[in-house]
Amino acid sequence: MQKITDIVLIGAGNVATNLGVAFQEAGFNIVQVYSRSSASAKKLAKQLNTSFTTDLESLVAGAHLYILSVPDNAMEMVLQNIDAKGKFLVHTSGSLSMQIFEGNATGFGVFYPLQTFSKLHKVDFHSIPVCVEANSSENIQRLKHLANSISKNVRIIGSEQRRVLHLAAVFACNFPNFMYSIAESITQNAELDFDLLKPLIMETAEKVQFVKPSEAQTGPAFRGDTKIMEKHMEMLVDAPEILELYQLVSKKISKSKS
Amino acid sequence: MQKITDIVLIGAGNVATNLGVAFQEAGFNIVQVYSRSSASAKKLAKQLNTSFTTDLESLVAGAHLYILSVPDNAMEMVLQNIDAKGKFLVHTSGSLSMQIFEGNATGFGVFYPLQTFSKLHKVDFHSIPVCVEANSSENIQRLKHLANSISKNVRIIGSEQRRVLHLAAVFACNFPNFMYSIAESITQNAELDFDLLKPLIMETAEKVQFVKPSEAQTGPAFRGDTKIMEKHMEMLVDAPEILELYQLVSKKISKSKS
Repeated sequence: MQKITDIVLIGAGNVATNLGVAFQEAGFNIVQVYSRSSASAKKLAKQLNTSFTTDLESLVAGAHLYILSVPDNAMEMVLQNIDAKGKFLVHTSGSLSMQIFEGNATGFGVFYPLQTFSKLHKVDFHSIPVCVEANSSENIQRLKHLANSISKNVRIIGSEQRRVLHLAAVFACNFPNFMYSIAESITQNAELDFDLLKPLIMETAEKVQFVKPSEAQTGPAFRGDTKIMEKHMEMLVDAPEILELYQLVSKKISKSKS
Repeated sequence: MQKITDIVLIGAGNVATNLGVAFQEAGFNIVQVYSRSSASAKKLAKQLNTSFTTDLESLVAGAHLYILSVPDNAMEMVLQNIDAKGKFLVHTSGSLSMQIFEGNATGFGVFYPLQTFSKLHKVDFHSIPVCVEANSSENIQRLKHLANSISKNVRIIGSEQRRVLHLAAVFACNFPNFMYSIAESITQNAELDFDLLKPLIMETAEKVQFVKPSEAQTGPAFRGDTKIMEKHMEMLVDAPEILELYQLVSKKISKSKS
């Protein structure tokens, strides 16, 4: 079984950047970076000290793995323009099926790191779950080996399960962050320092590392403290968008108790 | 100005327990614990190696501070049964005004640690913001001195601002935790391990320690990726309660962009 050492990154966004850095630190060769945007391609290639292209027809041949980290809606265009023959292609999407590669590539699979990436904040890959699947048990082994080199938390997970994880991640990440941003706007409007809430945000996330969230729920809606909730709703009367959210989430929390 | 050294805890719940431990570690004397429940009073008194009572008329006299950490709706009953003359009373509530003490106590104030407490998870008090207010500048100084002994983050904040903070805390803590619990139920129903989401939850909270949440927003609703959102909604068709939440929060996120 040929091990993966030479990798081409197709995409230069947050996921590609974080993966590229992690792979390079683990001793792999990033032999080329592709991005539609020449500025992005150039920037990441420079960071990884490698070459770049903005033309899918100029991808280097013979790399052991081609990682497609592009937005879901760009995937089709990219796939149509790659000469996939003889190549091992994977994507990093939470929601796209592995089957998009069928008929297009010799080897294919998925390499999905379950994390939120930004270019601003470097994440520690070691604890990040990486979900892999592939078209053959040999390719699963190759991806597992690759994933193990950057993470201690590698799982073989099929497309259907991965889609469920991706949905759950919306509730674990995107929606909590939106709640934070409302807390931000509430403090801002009262000329209070959002920093005051940061330890609370950390502790809330830390607590569920040890206690099930369903057992860690607190707050007026959970206690059924209608007096406080009424006060809160009064305070939000000039912010109907936030009020609507407060009411619905509070209703769901009290329902969840029964 | 007489410094506070001897403290009576009125209440034996999460806040009282965490405060009691922190004060004791900082060298203060917890001279008595009161709780309506004799089991709770006994347990906390044992933990703090002090005496307890279940009778408000048997509170020791002469302590420098009486901290009322009882549920908001029990506060009135407690206040009515305390002989407050000559005593310095504070409560630890986010939403009750300091004025509830007016006419009842010689000295009074608020000592509000902005954190979520549980008996299961010991929190580090040093970074917790403590919001204090009191009926006189001398009492403010006394509470500030006390707060500084356990936290590096002490603020003088009036009742109105504190109420706003408490509302913001619902969005920073209670609502995110509820989102986690939905992620928990989604993974559970698919026989997936909730542990897979824990690094994501941590990173989401960590990111907003450095980046404003309004600038850290990601996800399908934020990107306007209607294809994925439709897929998610299909997946939730048998979970109408979660679906309703998904739709409303997604709608708010996309509105927030414009």
